[in-house]
Amino acid sequence: MPPSSEPDEFALIAKYFAPLARSSPGSLGLLDDAALLEPEPGKSLVLAADMAVEGVHFIESDPPELIGRKVLRYNLSDLAAMGAAPIAYLLTLAKPEQRSSQWVGAIAAGLAEDQDAFGISLIGGDTSASPGPAMLSITVIGSVGAGEALQRSGARPDDVVFVSGTVGDGALGLKSMRGDLDGLAADDRDCLEDRYRLPRPRLALGRALVGLATAAIDVSDGLVADLAHICQASGVGAAVEASTVPLSPPAKAAIADGQIALSDLLTGGDDYELLFCVPEDRLEATERLEEAGGVTVTRIGRIAEGAGVEIHGEDGKPLAIENQGYRHF
Amino acid sequence: MPPSSEPDEFALIAKYFAPLARSSPGSLGLLDDAALLEPEPGKSLVLAADMAVEGVHFIESDPPELIGRKVLRYNLSDLAAMGAAPIAYLLTLAKPEQRSSQWVGAIAAGLAEDQDAFGISLIGGDTSASPGPAMLSITVIGSVGAGEALQRSGARPDDVVFVSGTVGDGALGLKSMRGDLDGLAADDRDCLEDRYRLPRPRLALGRALVGLATAAIDVSDGLVADLAHICQASGVGAAVEASTVPLSPPAKAAIADGQIALSDLLTGGDDYELLFCVPEDRLEATERLEEAGGVTVTRIGRIAEGAGVEIHGEDGKPLAIENQGYRHF
Repeated sequence: MPPSSEPDEFALIAKYFAPLARSSPGSLGLLDDAALLEPEPGKSLVLAADMAVEGVHFIESDPPELIGRKVLRYNLSDLAAMGAAPIAYLLTLAKPEQRSSQWVGAIAAGLAEDQDAFGISLIGGDTSASPGPAMLSITVIGSVGAGEALQRSGARPDDVVFVSGTVGDGALGLKSMRGDLDGLAADDRDCLEDRYRLPRPRLALGRALVGLATAAIDVSDGLVADLAHICQASGVGAAVEASTVPLSPPAKAAIADGQIALSDLLTGGDDYELLFCVPEDRLEATERLEEAGGVTVTRIGRIAEGAGVEIHGEDGKPLAIENQGYRHF
Repeated sequence: MPPSSEPDEFALIAKYFAPLARSSPGSLGLLDDAALLEPEPGKSLVLAADMAVEGVHFIESDPPELIGRKVLRYNLSDLAAMGAAPIAYLLTLAKPEQRSSQWVGAIAAGLAEDQDAFGISLIGGDTSASPGPAMLSITVIGSVGAGEALQRSGARPDDVVFVSGTVGDGALGLKSMRGDLDGLAADDRDCLEDRYRLPRPRLALGRALVGLATAAIDVSDGLVADLAHICQASGVGAAVEASTVPLSPPAKAAIADGQIALSDLLTGGDDYELLFCVPEDRLEATERLEEAGGVTVTRIGRIAEGAGVEIHGEDGKPLAIENQGYRHF
């Protein structure tokens, strides 16, 4: 590791992070040069790394309890999209000089909550001071049966396209937090903002999709952009019936109220639902998925020969989509 | 993954990072949600994560080619200290808005060089904009025979303490770069600054130490502090003969010239040599290590009952050490 960048780096690790590593013997108490992991025979490991930067992925006033959890959940959502079960993670954290050690403690407290919820444990990492914004980077390790990982590249013409949960709530949550969404009931507002602040990785659904889905991805860039990723990786096209895309009650209300267009929800990011493709002969099994996955799954379209994503409106005509995917800038 | 934080994130990844992943099929071309890794049967995986922050671990004017390599090498040095062979790594990078994509390309070019040198490949990661300094975080994955990893906790009384290479060059290099070291020959200055800028992870030595060393660590916080880490983890003490600690010719010249004290070199960080302990009955095998490890190893002291690290001067009296370890602030 690099030399300790703060006199109290060891103290911070001992106080706030070592407890997060307690249940994993391979973490060596975060006291050694690296962590050990004994892979289960017959399994592939699945690894993803995501970062969050203050001022880009979260803002200074965000509750620190949520910051670490959010990055962890970005990563867990990636595991879900591969059909993998989470095992462990490593965290690097750059702490702005003006932040107290309590701020670090709040991040760790949030992570502790999610460790319990998702059965995962910290095994290593690094901390540093930052002369600028806070940054967190997490690498997550999961496992899946060898050769069984879901990938983006397996979609075939005539596969049916499904999405879990509801679409567009993440984008609406962000809009609400920015003060750009009027007249919402407090409950609806809280629900949408919560969807943005704390993604729900669909891990159980992802595991249930192994052997069933030909391709899967998590909706982070937006439904249209992420379906386009599947199409590109699989060398196919796709058509989506806009009217079948599942929307939450507050999202429906926001459309009815003229505050947002359906097309903005279809291209909004941050949903962290699973978008996946299933061949005709597995549709019956897919209908039983909701029980295993703990979340609704809705049929929204079909894979076709060709390339690109077409969205059909209620009149059957293609819906014009201006921005294919949500961007932070 | 989180939503793309820049319109050109995909383009940056495709142009500069996908080529670094080409030799690893499990990277899925950096085009999927996560990477796949097939662990070798009978091996433990070894994982470490380290970060570097602009203004803390490197400065704005540092050549970008060296930034990624330096963080990668911090991590590889951690693998070396565990006796592990490197397999793959994941990278997250926060790019300051004013930096060009060529800057990213230069970081990637440096990493490409080190991938060849160390037989390692990129398998995943994430990029983001940064409204402040640049930050890089790398998670490295290596492997070692199950149960064979070197740890800090195995040192026993009467073990002999060895260090590889020379000690204190990293600290002198930093001092020179700060303009605090006068009268050095240009060659010596370059040699020292190079030691600071580009650590040499002692991977071959680390692997050769498996089955030989009872404990090992890489010297990042300074010889004294890192030996203290071994002592604490092992529940022992240690005594070092200062006169036996191996110094480079420029380090000897700097001491002779009164520009730095020996004790400053013993507590200086950033050497990335291996510090390890060997029982008496394996000393002969240890003398043959230099061939396998490609670097000199020097006997500098002995483990004892008790706690803490004592440094003995030429007169046999304990050397007063003011700061046990080097700090960036």
